[in-house]
Amino acid sequence: MALRILTDEEIQTVSMKLAVDCMADAFRQHAAGNLVAPGRLTSDVNIGQLVFTVGATTAPHRVVGFRCYDFQQLSSPRRAELTVLLDADDGHLLGIVTGPLLGALRTGAIGGVAIDHLARRDTETLGLIGAGYQARTQLAAALAVRSFNTVRVFSRDQQKRQQFTDQMRSQFDCDIQEVETARHAAEEADVLICATTSSHPVIEARWLKPGVHINTIGPKFKGSHEVGLDVAGLATRLVTDSSAQLEADGETLLLHGMPQLDCVEDLSTIVASQGGGTGDHRLATDTTLFISLGLAGTEVFLAKRLMDSMEDGLQ
Amino acid sequence: MALRILTDEEIQTVSMKLAVDCMADAFRQHAAGNLVAPGRLTSDVNIGQLVFTVGATTAPHRVVGFRCYDFQQLSSPRRAELTVLLDADDGHLLGIVTGPLLGALRTGAIGGVAIDHLARRDTETLGLIGAGYQARTQLAAALAVRSFNTVRVFSRDQQKRQQFTDQMRSQFDCDIQEVETARHAAEEADVLICATTSSHPVIEARWLKPGVHINTIGPKFKGSHEVGLDVAGLATRLVTDSSAQLEADGETLLLHGMPQLDCVEDLSTIVASQGGGTGDHRLATDTTLFISLGLAGTEVFLAKRLMDSMEDGLQ
Repeated sequence: MALRILTDEEIQTVSMKLAVDCMADAFRQHAAGNLVAPGRLTSDVNIGQLVFTVGATTAPHRVVGFRCYDFQQLSSPRRAELTVLLDADDGHLLGIVTGPLLGALRTGAIGGVAIDHLARRDTETLGLIGAGYQARTQLAAALAVRSFNTVRVFSRDQQKRQQFTDQMRSQFDCDIQEVETARHAAEEADVLICATTSSHPVIEARWLKPGVHINTIGPKFKGSHEVGLDVAGLATRLVTDSSAQLEADGETLLLHGMPQLDCVEDLSTIVASQGGGTGDHRLATDTTLFISLGLAGTEVFLAKRLMDSMEDGLQ
Repeated sequence: MALRILTDEEIQTVSMKLAVDCMADAFRQHAAGNLVAPGRLTSDVNIGQLVFTVGATTAPHRVVGFRCYDFQQLSSPRRAELTVLLDADDGHLLGIVTGPLLGALRTGAIGGVAIDHLARRDTETLGLIGAGYQARTQLAAALAVRSFNTVRVFSRDQQKRQQFTDQMRSQFDCDIQEVETARHAAEEADVLICATTSSHPVIEARWLKPGVHINTIGPKFKGSHEVGLDVAGLATRLVTDSSAQLEADGETLLLHGMPQLDCVEDLSTIVASQGGGTGDHRLATDTTLFISLGLAGTEVFLAKRLMDSMEDGLQ
């Protein structure tokens, strides 16, 4: 059989709904012990810094694999990102994904699963801070799991913000507004997504509506964080997708040494316990914060699903 | 440009002479600081154990890359090994090697460089212990850099040994003998190669001829080593290809805590200082031991060279 290679051209055709469903499956498998997801590895070679997230699934397929990207090239438009799948039984190569879209799709879809299981059902306003490729997939994922009357987008870069808003309007049938301040994006939001690379907090706790659900995608470290301790302190529930990564990040984390760290729940457990449930269990006044760390193995899980479904499509 | 993929079918056509020359270049670049080679990374995911050797070259090309294999699949005939090359300036994918042959070719070629720079010139007998794929490339590399009247091959598995010897006879114009004991392979050898997976020493110091050069490819750990401290104690020079890996292996190494560890020389320095030289500097009575650890970045260096030369060949 010829080597299966998926490029961004093919990944682009995947619906966010399918990706969110696949990630919900991945969390259930993780809770059942069928998805092995250790913390990531990094190797610094001066002119590059390769990051590897290694993972394995034992169900429904026995696959070992990894995603790799060069941290120094994150802003390069030509950069590759490799996701490699190996058969766990005889080690043969199942396939390779070559572009960065899969990682963004998976991170978006994980954000969608978090919103689906943590946010209130009767959402009206979505706040989005950030206008990069992570913001794009987070928005798509939020719209795949909830309805919103209004989306308010803020980014410091006015030109980028406008371009992003125009593009999103052409893709989604929804009132997508460009707003002038982060506060304006945050204060009416039922769901608020922070998808920036900012090293300083982009929101303040006092702006937030009671009962808001927040996804934080960007930096979470002591020296660099897009969401501060005020918001973590306000949250009645903190949830992460990767407890292993939370542990691996250790002392570098903003939450290190804080009482909140001991209360962080695992999204896998929540998804597994809710079945197909969608946030019904939450209290109206719950303020929830999802700390997106990137559960390892989810890229492998998603890539395998996509390769199989594309193969089925060809038959 | 289409993605360049090299399979084992293409790697098989590469001459060992070219690979040895390329590895000698790699050691010179390493000595000059142009090849970055940190210790390897390992990630255990229960049903697999992925090993990554990451490396970068800054000359003659700026390339970041890695080799990856599943340690649990080393004996599987279908197993893949990935070597991935990324452009260090914009992160685009330069190419992928998909099979395990490149790694074996490179480890063989490194052994050839060691023999070329450490063994006496007037060699007559080559001893080889082991009959696996590493033994094959070590033999090819030894024959690429020195002439031998006789090659004596020992492996515990009589059937495998005979099969190996038959195959090698058909490939090399040389008197290749199958011998009944490791001692018989070792005692007349001017160059002795240990390429086994044995956890117990396969040779004894008292068997060795003064002035012998030894390559040890297999395990080198306290609990598992194919060459014991008696041989390390006899050696007047100990040389490794990767001081970084020697350091990374730390307390697990057989040599840990031994005075010899402080005397281990770096093959890169020797190659760089000898120019194109070939072992002329050694004393006739020098007994040399090459500890092959697998310098990271050499797979990336070799893969880049092969891709470029194959591309030239197509023009």
